[in-house]
Amino acid sequence: MLLDGKKVSLEILDDVKERVSKMNVTPHLAVILVGDNPASEIYVRNKKLAAEKVGIMSSIIKLDANIKEEELLHKIKELNNNPNITGILVQLPLPGHIDKNKVITTISPKKDVDGFTPENVGKLSIGIEPYFYPATPQGIIMLLKKYNIKIEGADVVVIGRSTIVGKPMAQMFINNNATVTLCHSYTKDLEDKIKTADIVVSAVGKKIVRCKMVKKNSVIIDVGIFRDSNGKLTGDVDFDLVEPTVKYISPVPGGVGPMTIASLMYNASKVY
Amino acid sequence: MLLDGKKVSLEILDDVKERVSKMNVTPHLAVILVGDNPASEIYVRNKKLAAEKVGIMSSIIKLDANIKEEELLHKIKELNNNPNITGILVQLPLPGHIDKNKVITTISPKKDVDGFTPENVGKLSIGIEPYFYPATPQGIIMLLKKYNIKIEGADVVVIGRSTIVGKPMAQMFINNNATVTLCHSYTKDLEDKIKTADIVVSAVGKKIVRCKMVKKNSVIIDVGIFRDSNGKLTGDVDFDLVEPTVKYISPVPGGVGPMTIASLMYNASKVY
Repeated sequence: MLLDGKKVSLEILDDVKERVSKMNVTPHLAVILVGDNPASEIYVRNKKLAAEKVGIMSSIIKLDANIKEEELLHKIKELNNNPNITGILVQLPLPGHIDKNKVITTISPKKDVDGFTPENVGKLSIGIEPYFYPATPQGIIMLLKKYNIKIEGADVVVIGRSTIVGKPMAQMFINNNATVTLCHSYTKDLEDKIKTADIVVSAVGKKIVRCKMVKKNSVIIDVGIFRDSNGKLTGDVDFDLVEPTVKYISPVPGGVGPMTIASLMYNASKVY
Repeated sequence: MLLDGKKVSLEILDDVKERVSKMNVTPHLAVILVGDNPASEIYVRNKKLAAEKVGIMSSIIKLDANIKEEELLHKIKELNNNPNITGILVQLPLPGHIDKNKVITTISPKKDVDGFTPENVGKLSIGIEPYFYPATPQGIIMLLKKYNIKIEGADVVVIGRSTIVGKPMAQMFINNNATVTLCHSYTKDLEDKIKTADIVVSAVGKKIVRCKMVKKNSVIIDVGIFRDSNGKLTGDVDFDLVEPTVKYISPVPGGVGPMTIASLMYNASKVY
């Protein structure tokens, strides 16, 4: 069965829209875009369009690729102190001369709609409600819950340990009482680990999950998105062969991608 | 082979003592003890004794079991602002009417020698150097490294997901390139998981790791410490039967306990 992220994301966006329409303050998301990475420009534009749809104001702040780190940090502090701005998002990746961690730690945790600041990440780990959960893992949990997939007690394998997906995904599954194995480039016998998993989340960016690896009736979440040799958008999972074996699978495109946007808009609608 | 935490802890304490003797400022640890839990009083006294041995000043601040939460938070803020105090530790558990998370989040991350504040926990997760790593997991990593036990690529099972041991332990293993499975009370087939692990860390507080579960030549770290029906101090691992099967095992007492104290003193010697 297909985990229809497209459809579920529209339901969530409807909920967000209704919620925003009833708020006294209109949320206002500031998106910082440094340089002119074409992929980043598309992502930022999609976020702006989604915000418009749900009634969230947004401003894109385009900064030169050569901007000094100090200037960027200053800009973020300005937005932190601007009472009209309720959310701040810095589009990644950043140019090499800028320390990503410095940028992230400068964002006010109360405006950190990506959920990437140490305070929000730490609260997630401790089990204190953070101001924001990272968008992609939150979207995946939302998707699983919409389909009433049991997380509690499930054996979960998360492949990829990025701070954007893999690590917070593992935390969120643990907080939902799943048993989590976090795998990455140093993992041995990945196939054996996938084979025993009730739920697999793959966030690698290359074709890695093959049919023979997956357990019958398991749930497969594909976070990867890239173009194959024919230029076609594809994910980490060998979809056509895996699909008949498993119980649920998220497609690429139309799975985790739209859920991430909806989840981000849910975050952007929160005002602290 | 025995992982001699007692011996290694003395080496670490010697290093800390030498380091402290060369510092311009004498570190000063403030330990807050609320109420009169006998076990907590012993722990606090042992921390004070260890601090004395390595030349770290310490003050025990005893507060009444009925203290208002507000007053406790005020006391912590006072210590945060006191330039003579370089480290703050609140002995757990706290009385039921006090919100532990509020207490922890009030401690300044730069004085948080337990490494429990969201900022330090979040940095550990993100992979930014925190001011302090939690003492027990840090002590375990120190112990493994002293014995040149390979962590990179190892399959690690951590049993118990407390914020004091299990969760930060998992994070530290991931940052050291191990593949980590974090298990807890909802985990199914725990035995199968332990059976495939190269390194097992058990932090449960009851006899749970039996001989038939462990892999030959694996490494077993026992964090549990409690008294058996005969009043004898014991750990989570069925030591006598497990020991012949595995390559390394930490005893109880004399394993993780002294390493935790040494690791805490290492933290308390840091001044920000």
